[in-house]
Amino acid sequence: MYSRIRAETYRLFTPERGGRMGLVVDWFIMILIAVNVAAVILETIDSLGTQYATVFLWIEIVSVIIFTIEYVGRIWSAVEHPDYDGIVSGRVSFASRPLLIVDLLAILPFYLALVGVTAELRFLRALRLVRFLRLLKLARYSESLKAFSVVLERKKPDLIVAVFVNAMLLIVVSSAMYYIENQAQPETFSSIPQAMWWGVITLTTVGYGNTVPVTPLGQVLGALTAVLGIGLFALPASILASGFLEVARDETKECPYCGENIHNEEL
Amino acid sequence: MYSRIRAETYRLFTPERGGRMGLVVDWFIMILIAVNVAAVILETIDSLGTQYATVFLWIEIVSVIIFTIEYVGRIWSAVEHPDYDGIVSGRVSFASRPLLIVDLLAILPFYLALVGVTAELRFLRALRLVRFLRLLKLARYSESLKAFSVVLERKKPDLIVAVFVNAMLLIVVSSAMYYIENQAQPETFSSIPQAMWWGVITLTTVGYGNTVPVTPLGQVLGALTAVLGIGLFALPASILASGFLEVARDETKECPYCGENIHNEEL
Amino acid sequence: MYSRIRAETYRLFTPERGGRMGLVVDWFIMILIAVNVAAVILETIDSLGTQYATVFLWIEIVSVIIFTIEYVGRIWSAVEHPDYDGIVSGRVSFASRPLLIVDLLAILPFYLALVGVTAELRFLRALRLVRFLRLLKLARYSESLKAFSVVLERKKPDLIVAVFVNAMLLIVVSSAMYYIENQAQPETFSSIPQAMWWGVITLTTVGYGNTVPVTPLGQVLGALTAVLGIGLFALPASILASGFLEVARDETKECPYCGENIHNEEL
Amino acid sequence: MYSRIRAETYRLFTPERGGRMGLVVDWFIMILIAVNVAAVILETIDSLGTQYATVFLWIEIVSVIIFTIEYVGRIWSAVEHPDYDGIVSGRVSFASRPLLIVDLLAILPFYLALVGVTAELRFLRALRLVRFLRLLKLARYSESLKAFSVVLERKKPDLIVAVFVNAMLLIVVSSAMYYIENQAQPETFSSIPQAMWWGVITLTTVGYGNTVPVTPLGQVLGALTAVLGIGLFALPASILASGFLEVARDETKECPYCGENIHNEEL
Repeated sequence: MYSRIRAETYRLFTPERGGRMGLVVDWFIMILIAVNVAAVILETIDSLGTQYATVFLWIEIVSVIIFTIEYVGRIWSAVEHPDYDGIVSGRVSFASRPLLIVDLLAILPFYLALVGVTAELRFLRALRLVRFLRLLKLARYSESLKAFSVVLERKKPDLIVAVFVNAMLLIVVSSAMYYIENQAQPETFSSIPQAMWWGVITLTTVGYGNTVPVTPLGQVLGALTAVLGIGLFALPASILASGFLEVARDETKECPYCGENIHNEEL
Repeated sequence: MYSRIRAETYRLFTPERGGRMGLVVDWFIMILIAVNVAAVILETIDSLGTQYATVFLWIEIVSVIIFTIEYVGRIWSAVEHPDYDGIVSGRVSFASRPLLIVDLLAILPFYLALVGVTAELRFLRALRLVRFLRLLKLARYSESLKAFSVVLERKKPDLIVAVFVNAMLLIVVSSAMYYIENQAQPETFSSIPQAMWWGVITLTTVGYGNTVPVTPLGQVLGALTAVLGIGLFALPASILASGFLEVARDETKECPYCGENIHNEEL
Repeated sequence: MYSRIRAETYRLFTPERGGRMGLVVDWFIMILIAVNVAAVILETIDSLGTQYATVFLWIEIVSVIIFTIEYVGRIWSAVEHPDYDGIVSGRVSFASRPLLIVDLLAILPFYLALVGVTAELRFLRALRLVRFLRLLKLARYSESLKAFSVVLERKKPDLIVAVFVNAMLLIVVSSAMYYIENQAQPETFSSIPQAMWWGVITLTTVGYGNTVPVTPLGQVLGALTAVLGIGLFALPASILASGFLEVARDETKECPYCGENIHNEEL
Repeated sequence: MYSRIRAETYRLFTPERGGRMGLVVDWFIMILIAVNVAAVILETIDSLGTQYATVFLWIEIVSVIIFTIEYVGRIWSAVEHPDYDGIVSGRVSFASRPLLIVDLLAILPFYLALVGVTAELRFLRALRLVRFLRLLKLARYSESLKAFSVVLERKKPDLIVAVFVNAMLLIVVSSAMYYIENQAQPETFSSIPQAMWWGVITLTTVGYGNTVPVTPLGQVLGALTAVLGIGLFALPASILASGFLEVARDETKECPYCGENIHNEEL
C-alpha cells in the first residue's frame, strides 16, 4: 500500500510518466509559479502592496504550502527512480540537484520568517522563476533549446576568447581613462573600478551619460572605446551566426545528387 | 443594370482584376492615405495646427467622404466574390475581416464627433497608416516579403525561445536590482515594475540614463546586465541571419555537377 | 602643338593612362584634399582659427587656385575622350557629371565671396571630401568595393522592405507616444514630429535620454519600442550577412569533386 | 658551468621547452601579473589605497624585483636561441621585440621613481596586462585565436573599406551638424572636432545625451545619423559573420559523396 502510494506520487511529479494526471499537476504548478512571480512583482508597487496586503499574504501562504507538499513529495518518492534508490543516500543525492536546491531556497524564507529570522531573504522568492525554465522543455521547443546548447557548446572556445579579449580591452581602456580624467572629474572618475563602470556602459553602447569624459584627450579615448564597442557586438553575433549555420548544415539532409540521407557524426 | 454596376464596382476595388481603372483608383487611395498620414502628423505641430486649421479640416472632410464611399462600395460589391455571396451574411463576413475593421475604425471617429461623441478618438485616424501595408504587396517586393515571412515562420521556435529566455532574464535582473537599489534610490527604483523599465532600457542598450544604479553592487549588476544585453542582440540577429541563408540555399538552384535544377520540397 | 598639350593634359588628369606623372598629380591632389579637410575641421576651433587665420587663408587661396587649374584643365581636355568629343557639347556634358559638379561646388564659394556674395556657403568646402572616395578605387580595395555594391544591389528589395516596415513602425509608435505623453509632458512631446525624434533615438537604441516617457503607459510603449529596436538592428545585419555569404559562394571556386572551376552566371 | 646555467635559464623561460619547471614558472608569473593588475586597480580606490598603502607598496616592490630577474634572465639567456646568437647584437635584437619592450616599460617607472623621476608614469604599470595575452596562447584556445586572425586577415580589405566609409560619413555628418547647431548651441557644438564627439557617440549608438541637436534641422540630421549608425553596426557584423563561415567551410571536411577528406589550399 505504502509503496503503491509512493509509486503513484512519483509518477505524479514526473510529467513524462504521469499521464493525464501528471500533466494536470505540472500545469497547475506552472500557473501557481506564474501567479507567484506576478505577486512578487506587483507587491512591490506601494499602492497595490498596502491595499491588497492580505491577498498577497494569502497567495504566499497557500503557495508555500503547496510548494512544500510538492517538495516533500518529490524527495520522498525520489527513491522510485533507479538512480536514487538508497532510502537516505538516494534522497540526499536527489535533494542536492541544483533544481531541487532552488526549490528549497524558494520556500525557505517563509519558514525562516516564522521562526524569527526576519533578514531580507524575500528576494529568494524570485527563485521560483527558475522553475519556469521547465516550460521550455515542453515538446515544441526542446529542439530549439538543443540547437542553442549545441551552438553554445561548439562555439565555447571562440566565445571565451572573445570575452577574454573584451575583458582585457575593458581594463586597459578604463585604466587609461582614469589617469586621463581623474584630475578633471575627481568625483566621477574617482578610481579605476569607477572608470570601469564608464567602460562597460560605453563598450556595450548603453551610454547612460552620467559618467562622460570631458577633457579632449578623454573624448578621443572615449570615441575610440565607442568604436571598439561595435567590435564587441559584432564578434559574438557573428560567432553565433556561424554556429547556427554550421549546426543547420550538419543536420541530416537529403543529398541532392544521390538521394540518400547524409548523417554527420560530428553532432 | 444594378448587377452590372455592382460587378463594375467590385472590379474597381479589386486591383488584381480592375485593369487600368482599378490601378488608378488604387494609386489615388494610396496617395490620399499618404496625404492623410502627413496631415495627422503635421496637425499636431501647434503653429501649423492653428494657422492651417481650415486646410486640415477640409483634408479630413474630403478624405472621410472618399473613404466612406470606398468602404460602402467595397462592402456592397463584396457579394461578387464567391466567398461572400450571401446578400447579408456575405457582407457581414466580409466586413469582419481585420483590414475592413481597420478601415471602419479609421473613419468612425469623424462620424462619432458629428453625433456628439467627442472623446479623444482622433488617434484612430492613425490606423489609416495600416493600409500602407498594401504598398508592399506590389509586385517588386512581394518576393522579399514572402522570404521574410518564410524566415520568420521557420525560425519561430528559435525566436520564441530567445524571447522567453530574455523575458526571464529581464525579470531576474530587475527584481535583483530593485532589492539592491531600493534603499539608495527609493524614488527611482520604487517597485519591481519600475526596475523593469530600467532593465529593458539597459538590456536593449538604449540607456536613457534617467534611472541608473548608484550603489557599487548595483553597478556591478548593471554592468553585467549591459553585457548580457549584447547577447540579447546577438541571438535574434544570428538566428535571422541563419534563417535568411537557409532559405536562400533552399531556393531553386542549378546543380553545378549535373546541370539540373534542384527543387527543395521543404519550402 | 595645341592639341599635343591638350592630349598631354588629358593624360595628366586620367590616372589610368597618365603613367608616372599622372600618378604624381593624383597623389598630390589627394594630399591637398586631405590638407584642406583638416584645415576646414581645425579652423572651426576658436583658438586655432584666430591664431593661424593667415595660414588657413593661404591654404584656402593656394588650394582654390590649384583646384581651379585642375578643374579648367580637365574640362578643357575632356574632348580627348571619345564620349565627350563635341567642342562645346562634350565639355558641357562632361561638366554635368556628378563628380565634376561636386568639384565646381567645392571651389565656387571662394569666387562668390570675391564678388561680394558672402552668404554662409563655406560649408560647401566640405564637399572636397567627396573626392576622397576616389582613394577607394585604388587597386587593392576595388574588389571589396565591388563586393559591397553587389551585395547591396542583390539585397536592395529586402533592405527597402526592411526600411519601409521600420518607417511605418516609427510613425505608429511615435503617434501613439504623442497621444499618451502629450498631457504629462506638453513641452517634450509637443507634436508627432517631436515624438518621432524620440522614436528614432529609441528604435536605433541611441537613447540620449532627453525625451523620455514618464507615464506608466508611456513606459510600457517605450519598453516595447526599445525591444522592437533590436529587430530593427537584426534585420539589416542578417540581410547583409546572408548577402555577403551568397556572393562569396557564387564566386568562382574549384569544384572539389571534378577539379573544374565552377562559374555562376547569376553574378 | 656558466653555459649550462644559461641553457637551464633559457629553458625555464621558454614554456614550450621548459618541461614541468617551465610550466610552474609560467603559471607563477601569470598569477603575479594578475595580482599586480588587481593591485593597480584596487589601489586607486581611495579608502583602500590609504588603508593598505604598505601592502600595495610591498606587492609592487616584490613584483618589480621578480619581473626584473625574469627580464634580465630572459635577455641574458636569449642567445641560446639560434635567432639571437650574437653576444651583444643578439640580445639587443631580442630586447627590441615588442613584447620585451612592454616588459621593460612595465618595470621602468619603479626605477625611474627611485632615481628621482617622479613624473606620472605609474600608468605604464598597466602594461603588465599585455602579458596576459599569453594566456590565450595556451593549448585549448590557440585554434580559436588562429581562426580569429584568419578571419581578420581574410576580411581585412572589406573591414578597411568599411572603416574608411564610416570615417568619411563621420566627417560629413559632424561638419554639417556644426554648421547647423553652432548658432543655437555655441558651447556644445563649438567646433567641428567637438561635433565629431557627438558624431561618434551617435553613430556608435552609445548616445550619452550630453551633446544633442536642438534645432529641427539638427534633429532631422541627428535622426538620419542614428539610422546610419545601424549600418555602421551591420557592416562589420555581417562581414565577420561571413568570414567565420567561409573559414569554417574551408576547413578540412569529409566529402559526403566519396568519403575522402577535402583540403582547401586557400588557407
